[in-house]
Amino acid sequence: MDNMIRVTADAMLAEFTRILRKNGFSEERSEKCAEIFTLNSLEGVYSHGVNRFPRFIKNTLEGFVKPEAEPTLIHSFGSVEQWNGNLGPGPLNALFATDRATELADENGIGMLTLANTNHWMRGGTYGWHAARKGYVLISWTNTCPNMPAWGARDPRLGNNPFVLAVPYMNDAVVLDFAMTQFSYGKMETYRNAGEKLPYPGGFNKEDEMTNDPAEILESWRPVPIGFWKGSGLSLLLDILAAVLSGGQSTHQIKSCSSEYAVSQVFIAINARSLNNFPSINDSINSIINDLKQSVPADASSHVRYPGENIAKIRDENLRNGIPVNKDFWEKLKKL
Amino acid sequence: MDNMIRVTADAMLAEFTRILRKNGFSEERSEKCAEIFTLNSLEGVYSHGVNRFPRFIKNTLEGFVKPEAEPTLIHSFGSVEQWNGNLGPGPLNALFATDRATELADENGIGMLTLANTNHWMRGGTYGWHAARKGYVLISWTNTCPNMPAWGARDPRLGNNPFVLAVPYMNDAVVLDFAMTQFSYGKMETYRNAGEKLPYPGGFNKEDEMTNDPAEILESWRPVPIGFWKGSGLSLLLDILAAVLSGGQSTHQIKSCSSEYAVSQVFIAINARSLNNFPSINDSINSIINDLKQSVPADASSHVRYPGENIAKIRDENLRNGIPVNKDFWEKLKKL
Repeated sequence: MDNMIRVTADAMLAEFTRILRKNGFSEERSEKCAEIFTLNSLEGVYSHGVNRFPRFIKNTLEGFVKPEAEPTLIHSFGSVEQWNGNLGPGPLNALFATDRATELADENGIGMLTLANTNHWMRGGTYGWHAARKGYVLISWTNTCPNMPAWGARDPRLGNNPFVLAVPYMNDAVVLDFAMTQFSYGKMETYRNAGEKLPYPGGFNKEDEMTNDPAEILESWRPVPIGFWKGSGLSLLLDILAAVLSGGQSTHQIKSCSSEYAVSQVFIAINARSLNNFPSINDSINSIINDLKQSVPADASSHVRYPGENIAKIRDENLRNGIPVNKDFWEKLKKL
Repeated sequence: MDNMIRVTADAMLAEFTRILRKNGFSEERSEKCAEIFTLNSLEGVYSHGVNRFPRFIKNTLEGFVKPEAEPTLIHSFGSVEQWNGNLGPGPLNALFATDRATELADENGIGMLTLANTNHWMRGGTYGWHAARKGYVLISWTNTCPNMPAWGARDPRLGNNPFVLAVPYMNDAVVLDFAMTQFSYGKMETYRNAGEKLPYPGGFNKEDEMTNDPAEILESWRPVPIGFWKGSGLSLLLDILAAVLSGGQSTHQIKSCSSEYAVSQVFIAINARSLNNFPSINDSINSIINDLKQSVPADASSHVRYPGENIAKIRDENLRNGIPVNKDFWEKLKKL
């Protein structure tokens, strides 16, 4: 962590807002978008917060992200709505979609909104937390560019298609947000740059051997899907469903990962208040988590955690001390 | 495959029906239930077809499965219905739930039915095929008894919670049906009995080392979740959602795997006909599968397949030649 500085959330928010304003975002949309990038950073997902921000601006300048484009309704039937994202900013489109899905769930208990032609939503968990904190279960996913070979294949034709499950819990949430590759490219780069091996095999090398050497996997572009054939199948089905339910592009149509745009997303919201057992939901989740916490640790260094458990701690720490950013990176960002 | 015989689907169906009739199932319910066990066998899922049938009868005799119990509505709100499975036969309850979820989806495009207090549904994919062949997307899962340690833990407190995604395709379907353990106990037993190692590490041995020796994993009861921490998180969230959405038991309340009963299940159906792009769904899936099939195989023995691709072939073969069953097992079954 050499050369790291700490930037306050307020300073980061102001900087993001300024840069977005300069790049075609209205005042209101600059603030909303800056808030999401700042929140993702505050909650420790730097790869889809501050560290991704320059690329987001680059994609805007390239015309892949249209700052002022808003989703338009293509079709609706009951509690299902299909929208065109019109290549608007992914985080703003996804936030809109989440809110609208929860409105649909207010009417009939469950609602689904799909987005065709939208952009990278950055951190999927953000929308899970957002919905769950308002009292909704969220089941949501996105497709991506082809960045993972199918099981048994050499060339990347599947996406890592992040999948989000979120449930309200104690005025907060339990949120699972995971991609289909065992390790993200960003994580493998971090290990490689530190000269370390991955803790578990994460892909194949050019000799078709499974390896925990991140450099070899980054060279072969053959990260392994979670659960091997199982994650490969899950990636495929999430892509098929994203394309079918939205009428938008599938992974193989997105083609390029260097200029990924026009992805497809699904947002299914369930109104927890519409359930018979709504008053006892917290007790129910408490008892599950309490049981989990009684697990016998595999070794002294093991911590059995539920997904999202650490978020509050990281957020508090970053609120107190500032958000860690590479100094040179931050200086360069400020010149945008 | 020593000592295997082939039994025709008709003979198997008749045998199952006879035994179910003898064990408290009405004529209609015997036939329906026998059909599901026969279909699962026909389509190659013997572990949740013929090979599981005697245990299903045992569970019925033990009183865990109530032959004539039918689901009753606890609560409804719009397109969400919560039902009590009343410990009825898992396959009959699940088939009912699937059909009712598709009815809810007819009204508003999407519908969710949950079952508390139901029983093992055998093969989850069966309900995926059933819904998808009628023109519905199905997202469905069940919780199970605790049979998998959380990531970082020694003792099994999570379930392998099978998860099903199904989508209509060419008057048939693409169906993914997978459990959260990398290898099922049944599969590990098969490898062990054949004196073979697993093709990939499938769990930890008693020395806390990851191993591909099935005997060691069957001894330690520490199968590894798919994607390690990711499948562990997915199992937990599926359990939380199953319990919260149904108001039924969670995995830790189900306690015993030798007498697993009163599980919780979720069925979310989406009516494909309610989508704007319904006429082009087959084209869309075709193009995804065609792209997948252009994958460069990792080696000469690799086959890149989509989930469920082999089902039709297996079914046709078993229809032609009969369903493979161990001779002694079948003789014993016929005495039930």
